[in-house]
Amino acid sequence: MTVLFADRLRFFDTTLRDGEQTPGVSLGPDQKLAIARMLAEVGVDVVEAGSAAASAGEREGIRLVAEAGIGPEVCCYVRALPADIDWAADAGADSVHLVVPVSDLHITKKLRKDRATVCRMAFDAIEHAKNRGLLVELSGEDASRADQSFLADLFAEGVDRGADRLCFCDTVGLLTPEAAQACVPPLAAIAPLSIHCHDDLGFGLATTVAALRAGATCAHATVNGLGERAGNTAFEALVMALERLYGYRTGIATRKLYPLSTLVSRLTKVPLATQAPVAGEMAFTHESGIHAHGVLREASTYEALPPELVGRTRRILLGKHTGSAAVEAALAERGYRPGDTQLAEIVRRIKALGDEGKRVTDADLLAIAEAVLAIECTPALSLRQYTVVSGSNAIPTASVTIRVNGEEITSAATGTGPVDAAVEALRRSVSAVGNIELLEYHVDAISGGTDALVDVTVKLARDGNVITSRGARTDIITASVEAVVAGMNRLLRD
Amino acid sequence: MTVLFADRLRFFDTTLRDGEQTPGVSLGPDQKLAIARMLAEVGVDVVEAGSAAASAGEREGIRLVAEAGIGPEVCCYVRALPADIDWAADAGADSVHLVVPVSDLHITKKLRKDRATVCRMAFDAIEHAKNRGLLVELSGEDASRADQSFLADLFAEGVDRGADRLCFCDTVGLLTPEAAQACVPPLAAIAPLSIHCHDDLGFGLATTVAALRAGATCAHATVNGLGERAGNTAFEALVMALERLYGYRTGIATRKLYPLSTLVSRLTKVPLATQAPVAGEMAFTHESGIHAHGVLREASTYEALPPELVGRTRRILLGKHTGSAAVEAALAERGYRPGDTQLAEIVRRIKALGDEGKRVTDADLLAIAEAVLAIECTPALSLRQYTVVSGSNAIPTASVTIRVNGEEITSAATGTGPVDAAVEALRRSVSAVGNIELLEYHVDAISGGTDALVDVTVKLARDGNVITSRGARTDIITASVEAVVAGMNRLLRD
Repeated sequence: MTVLFADRLRFFDTTLRDGEQTPGVSLGPDQKLAIARMLAEVGVDVVEAGSAAASAGEREGIRLVAEAGIGPEVCCYVRALPADIDWAADAGADSVHLVVPVSDLHITKKLRKDRATVCRMAFDAIEHAKNRGLLVELSGEDASRADQSFLADLFAEGVDRGADRLCFCDTVGLLTPEAAQACVPPLAAIAPLSIHCHDDLGFGLATTVAALRAGATCAHATVNGLGERAGNTAFEALVMALERLYGYRTGIATRKLYPLSTLVSRLTKVPLATQAPVAGEMAFTHESGIHAHGVLREASTYEALPPELVGRTRRILLGKHTGSAAVEAALAERGYRPGDTQLAEIVRRIKALGDEGKRVTDADLLAIAEAVLAIECTPALSLRQYTVVSGSNAIPTASVTIRVNGEEITSAATGTGPVDAAVEALRRSVSAVGNIELLEYHVDAISGGTDALVDVTVKLARDGNVITSRGARTDIITASVEAVVAGMNRLLRD
Repeated sequence: MTVLFADRLRFFDTTLRDGEQTPGVSLGPDQKLAIARMLAEVGVDVVEAGSAAASAGEREGIRLVAEAGIGPEVCCYVRALPADIDWAADAGADSVHLVVPVSDLHITKKLRKDRATVCRMAFDAIEHAKNRGLLVELSGEDASRADQSFLADLFAEGVDRGADRLCFCDTVGLLTPEAAQACVPPLAAIAPLSIHCHDDLGFGLATTVAALRAGATCAHATVNGLGERAGNTAFEALVMALERLYGYRTGIATRKLYPLSTLVSRLTKVPLATQAPVAGEMAFTHESGIHAHGVLREASTYEALPPELVGRTRRILLGKHTGSAAVEAALAERGYRPGDTQLAEIVRRIKALGDEGKRVTDADLLAIAEAVLAIECTPALSLRQYTVVSGSNAIPTASVTIRVNGEEITSAATGTGPVDAAVEALRRSVSAVGNIELLEYHVDAISGGTDALVDVTVKLARDGNVITSRGARTDIITASVEAVVAGMNRLLRD
C-alpha cells in the first residue's frame, strides 16, 4: 500500500463549534469543558471551543475551556471583525479560526461586498489577531466554489501579513476527492493547510482523506459527524479509516472513541445514528444467520475491525434473520443445551416472532426455549391489577397487586410521574421475594398521535443476572408495567 | 468535468434484503410490497425482495412482490444451495443474487471448505438456476479480501456456465476508491459488473462511485443506508452525488427520494439519522445566524442542492446560534415588524433560552416578541387542574378544568391511554371557544430511568393557523398537557 500522507497529520476538532451549530443543539459551558477534556484524552491537536459572536453563554464556554489548560490548542471561530477577535482574545483562546468568504457567490450574495473589501477585512483581522497574540488559521469559506487563483493570492498575502496556517472550507460539501487532488497542492505549498469538509452529498470523509493525501496536513472533524445540515466529517470514522484502510498510525487513543461518541451524544441529545461507521448503534451488531454464524466462528469474517479497538463490544441480536448458531450460543449462555430438533423448533418460533415485526428480547427467547424444552413454566408472578392516579394537584400515585407464590401482595408508591410510581409500586410488591433493580428504561421516540404505539424496553438485574424485556401498547403505563413484569418473571425463575 | 461513467448505470436496490437485515428490522409481506412499489416509481432497475432462506414470512414477501408486476426486475438472494434456488423460483422471482464466499478467510473459516468445493457449488447452483429459468447475478462475497486472480477465474467460468452478471461484494467495507479502481476493470471485462459496498469505515459511497467510474455498470444500494452493521451505500446519497457532483443524469425521480426515505423509516422503525446526506433530519435545516442569513438572501450559499429537488422543504430553527435576519423573517410571517432595538432584544432573549439548552418553538418566539413589543398578553386560557385515572381494570379517564374568557369549563374524556384521555379532555374544554386540531404529537426517545425528562412537542392547528409548542417534565402527562395548553393559548389569540 502506497502511503502518501505527511509524517504527522493533525486533528482539529470542531465538535464544540461546527458540531454545536447542528440545529437544535446547545451545549452549556460545563458541557463544553467535559467534552474538551475527553477530546484532550483522545489526543486531538486543536479544540475549536466555539464561536465568540454566538452568545454570552458561548463566550463563557470558550473561556472555561481555555482556562482549564486541557492540553490541546484552544481555538475560537471568528469573522473578520475586530469585536470577534477581541472576544476570542479576552476569553483566553490560543488561536482564531478566521473565516472569510472566498467564492464570488458568498462575497456578493451573502456579504454584498467585493473581493477587494473582503481581502482588506481579512488582512486587517489578521494583523489585529497577531497584535492580540493569537495564532491565526485563515480559512477560505466556500473555497470549493471559489476562483482558485484568487484564493491562492488571498492565502499568500494572508501568510505575508502573519497568518500561521490556512484552511480550505468545503462549506456545502461539493468537493470531490478528484477535485481535492487538484485544488490542494498549490495551496499546501503556501503554508500548512487544513481541510474542512461537509457531508451534504456523502463525500465528507473520502474528500478529507483525498485532501490529506494531496498535501493537507490537518483535518477538521466532529465527533459523530455533527455539524451544519448533513454534518461534518466524522472524527471517529476518519481516524479508523486512516488506521485500517490506509495504514496510517494516527496516534489517537482509539479505545476512547466510543466513550467519546456516547458522551457527545448524551450532552448534545443527538442520538447515535442506527447506521454509522464506528459509532453507529448497529456498527458491531449482527442478527442474520450467515453473519452471526460467521462471526461466532471467526469475527473478522464480518467485521472490518475488532469492536474492542474503539471501546465497544459485539452484540448478537435474535430476530427473523437469526440462524441456529446464534440461538444455540445464546441458550448455552443461559445453561440450556437443546437437541437438534428442539433447536430447530426454537429457531422456527423466533423467526415467527420476528416475522411479526417484533424485537426478540431475552425474555422472549427463554419463554420460547422453555416451551419447546417442556420446562415447567408457571409464571413466578402474575399481575392482578394496577391503578394510577395523577394530576396537576395530585402527586402521581400507583397501587399494584401481584400474585406470587400463591399469595397476593398489594403495594403503593408515589413517583415523579405515573410510570415512575407504577414501576416503584411493582418493585415494592416484589421485594418480599427478590430485590430487583431497574438498570435501564427506554422508550422509542413516539410519533404520530397520542394514540400511537409506545414501545418500552427495560433492563433489569437481580444478583448479577441481567435481562431485557419489552412491552408495547398505546398506553405508556401499561406498556411499562408489562415490560417490567415480564422481566421480573424471568429473573425470579433463574 | 470529465465524466467516466457507462452510458447507462443501473440501480439494484437491496433495501428489502440487505437493508432488512439491519439488526432489529423486520418487514412483513405487505410492507415489502409497499416499499417495492415506491422503488418502482422512483425508477430503480432491480428490487432485491428478500432472502429465500430467512423465514416463511420472508418467502411470502418475495412472492407478493414478484406477483405484483411492479416493473423492475425482482431478485431473490440465494446461497449456492438447490433449496434456496427452488424457493426463489417457486416464489416467482425473475433473478437470483447468488452469493458465494470468495476470500480464503470466508471459505476456510466460515464455510470450512476449500476453493474447489466452493467453485463446484457455485457452478452447480448457476446451472440449477438457469434450468429454473432465472437470471443469475453471481456475487463474490468478501471480494475485497479475495485473491483477485482466483476471483477472475471463478467469475469467468461462472459466466461460461450461464451467469448473466457479476457482483463485487465489499462485504465488510474494506475497499478504498483507489483499490476499486484497480480491482474493477479486469472483472468488468468479463461481464456486466455490479458493485456492492458497506459503510463500516465510511467509504461505502465514495468506493461505489469509484467502482462505477472504473467500469462497473450497476450499483447496489439501500434506502437510508440501511444494512448489516454500519449499513450499505445509501441510495438517495448515491443518486444525488452522481447528479450533483459528477453531472451524471441518473433518470431517477429525485423528487420522490424523500417520500421514499420517510416510508422506509416508518415501516422499518429505523429513524432517519439527524445528520445524513439528503435524507437526514437536519440536511436542509439552518439555525446559525450566518447560515440562516445567507440562505435567506440566496439559498445556494449554504445548500448543496435545493431541497425541493429531493422532495423536501427548507427549515430555519431558532436557538442560541440564531441571528437577527432569521428572527426578523420568522416574525414577519406572523405580522410583527419590530424596530431595530426591539429586534436586538428579542434575539438576545432567544439566545438566552438557547443557552439554557432549550429548543425554541413558535410559541416561545411569540411569547418573547410580545413581551418585548409590550403587546397585551393575558393568556386566552389557563389550566386550573387536570386529573387522570388509569389502570389494568380501568379505562384511561381524564378530567380537565380550564379558565377561558373569565369562565371555568370542566370536561372529561377517555382515551387509549392516559395522555390520549387528557389531551381529548382538553380539546373538549376548549371547543366552546375554538376548534383546535392536534396535527402531530411527538415524544423524544426516553432513556435512562423512569424519572428521566420527557420532552413533548406538539403541532396544533386552528382555521389554517399552525403552531408548534413543547413541554418538558419528568411526567409524560404533565409535559403533554403543558405543550398542548401552550399551543392552544397561541392559537386562540392569533
